[in-house]
Amino acid sequence: MFQTKVERIQRDIETLARYSSVEGIGCTRYTYTKEYAQARDYVVSEMKAAGLTVREDAVGTIVGRLEGKNPDAPVLMTGSHLDTVKTGGRFDGIAGVCAALETARVLHEEGFVPECPVEFVAMPEEEGARFGGGLFASRAMCGKLYENELETYKDADGVSMAKAMKAYGLDPSRAGEAERKPGEVGTFLELHIEQGPVLENEKIQVGVVEAIVGLKCMIVTVRGRSDHAGSTPMNMRADAMLASAKAMVAGTQRALDQKDGTVVTFGRLEIKPGAFNIVANETDFYIDCRSRSMESVDAVLEEIEASLKKSAEENPGLSYHIEEKLRAYPVLMKPSVQELLEKKAEEAGISTRRILSGAGHDAMIMGSLCDVAMVFVPSKDGRSHVPEEWTDYEDLRNGAEVLCRCVRELASCK
Amino acid sequence: MFQTKVERIQRDIETLARYSSVEGIGCTRYTYTKEYAQARDYVVSEMKAAGLTVREDAVGTIVGRLEGKNPDAPVLMTGSHLDTVKTGGRFDGIAGVCAALETARVLHEEGFVPECPVEFVAMPEEEGARFGGGLFASRAMCGKLYENELETYKDADGVSMAKAMKAYGLDPSRAGEAERKPGEVGTFLELHIEQGPVLENEKIQVGVVEAIVGLKCMIVTVRGRSDHAGSTPMNMRADAMLASAKAMVAGTQRALDQKDGTVVTFGRLEIKPGAFNIVANETDFYIDCRSRSMESVDAVLEEIEASLKKSAEENPGLSYHIEEKLRAYPVLMKPSVQELLEKKAEEAGISTRRILSGAGHDAMIMGSLCDVAMVFVPSKDGRSHVPEEWTDYEDLRNGAEVLCRCVRELASCK
Repeated sequence: MFQTKVERIQRDIETLARYSSVEGIGCTRYTYTKEYAQARDYVVSEMKAAGLTVREDAVGTIVGRLEGKNPDAPVLMTGSHLDTVKTGGRFDGIAGVCAALETARVLHEEGFVPECPVEFVAMPEEEGARFGGGLFASRAMCGKLYENELETYKDADGVSMAKAMKAYGLDPSRAGEAERKPGEVGTFLELHIEQGPVLENEKIQVGVVEAIVGLKCMIVTVRGRSDHAGSTPMNMRADAMLASAKAMVAGTQRALDQKDGTVVTFGRLEIKPGAFNIVANETDFYIDCRSRSMESVDAVLEEIEASLKKSAEENPGLSYHIEEKLRAYPVLMKPSVQELLEKKAEEAGISTRRILSGAGHDAMIMGSLCDVAMVFVPSKDGRSHVPEEWTDYEDLRNGAEVLCRCVRELASCK
Repeated sequence: MFQTKVERIQRDIETLARYSSVEGIGCTRYTYTKEYAQARDYVVSEMKAAGLTVREDAVGTIVGRLEGKNPDAPVLMTGSHLDTVKTGGRFDGIAGVCAALETARVLHEEGFVPECPVEFVAMPEEEGARFGGGLFASRAMCGKLYENELETYKDADGVSMAKAMKAYGLDPSRAGEAERKPGEVGTFLELHIEQGPVLENEKIQVGVVEAIVGLKCMIVTVRGRSDHAGSTPMNMRADAMLASAKAMVAGTQRALDQKDGTVVTFGRLEIKPGAFNIVANETDFYIDCRSRSMESVDAVLEEIEASLKKSAEENPGLSYHIEEKLRAYPVLMKPSVQELLEKKAEEAGISTRRILSGAGHDAMIMGSLCDVAMVFVPSKDGRSHVPEEWTDYEDLRNGAEVLCRCVRELASCK
């Protein structure tokens, strides 16, 4: 049995990192650009060298296929995305593409012939950094493109997706052909960097993802009255900032009480009129709440609303409005594949722990089409989407090794 | 015994309200402007009609003197300021000037001859709206002008106080002559609008001020870490917003626990980076805390700091810095004059309550020179410094009546 090799993975990562429109600060590779085409050419060439049959699907996903003994069996698919955010890192997405590439090489060296077809993929426009949509190629595969998306989504220069696709060599009118039929794909396996601090903090080598969390994002507007900070007794105020602070503290405590990894974040707040000696007459703040269970998300939001309601009852003149901006349901990873990943890691002497994915990934979309599973590798300081994003190559190899062993076993099943 | 008359007070207020540089929206009368000179001329003329000997002091305070049987006895002074904020109301300051004018008229009608001299004053630049300093004329009277203030404080057009004084007809090099000698003034009595909701809410006609509160204003900077809102568990965060919210809630509870009218306000907050899905790595917020007792102010600030300290201990990576921006000590009103004001109100059938002044006033400065006392009249909806600022003329007359009776009695003491 052959093993994954860190040097090859490192060479892939370093080569792809050079295809960046911004030099000297991280990696910037927007979808359908010249740099993206250079990355594609490299991946295609490496896939061919690994004995795969390579094609591009209708939206530009590179698909390298290792034919199975039963070509009509549900496909085992693995990979991730090849695009980056602006001045992002070299690992987000790319790590999963390179782990898939390395897996293809190892299986090729072994002369492995799978029972089912195995497809190694590199997808465009997961980040949405160029056109704003995001998760585009997986949505195309799952038949979830938005109406007129190709015409209405434009980049900073006003170039529509359709126009950019044409320039890249794709026919936007055929984008629908990227959709896979029900049953065509059996499992989608994605390796990704954690983008969080858990594995590093706990010195665990590989994370086996249990679920991609569900989330709700809300905008809260609290309206009070702009009284004088000196001449208005506390019990005659309608203080929007104080009501907001109380709601944040209450919501946070409820998230902790759920004891299931529920997180809540208040990352944005505006306060009016914004003078130190005037009681705030309005605050607008965001709630970002995520959990493996939508019930926990709702419990936190209910706690926040209950706190605001109490403030409004205690302070006539205070009112609030809560508006949902974003909702995504949790996507559970296939339990049997989680167990297999753990078993394969143990065989290779690689430590694991179950983990939640707090961010969305292509696997989240693919969950509507097939079984999904994800492997996380550690992120230095938990950082991502910044030039400092980093994963040690040995850590990435560990993840690739677990992925490779899992693919080998899943593809051997009759 | 003559009484104060509402029609005369209303005429004074309405006439002075017309001397505004902005028409149609409240009153804007900056110090040393053409409009200010018009207001001065009106006040001087009314003072002379009330039999006073009128002069301007070295910084433009109009002083109308009713000579006492003992001209060397400590002066009983009453009045307030004649300047306004930008598009402010017609009562803030002016109410106290008009109550003093009306008192002078009543005493003149009676042929009243006081034991001590009584001075009726109208002061410029209390608000600091034109030059930024504020409480200027009372500071001049108390020998508390800032070094080079006249040269360095400039209005929005770059005109220095010194230049504006010259244009107004004053000699800035003689500003120091406005200072009163120790013992020269015995008591300063100021009527002012409440600028808060207490009297109106409780349907009380006149407030007898116990103290002008002390205050501290602090800027707090909390530094955390900008983690991903999904992939960072709650216990691995250094969330600047959450730590700030907890500190605000704790500080507010402590202010309420003091049970002495202590108030705390968080009117300004900035959050960075300010994205809904990124944990805040920095917040900068203001604390405005006021109380009749500086110990209570300090207790609230200590509670806020204790909360921040606890957050920093629980979340490595979180730190905070607190900087004092402003400090003013409480100024207590003369107890015997408070009692006299209550007695005189009772005689006139006017209801009173003790009250705190949450805002600063010229009386606060005068407290360093002589005994001080203040009378508050109700503010509609507690509002001030806005065009909607309002006090019913009958309410203002009630205050003037109490003031007049108090002046009569104090000035009769041998």
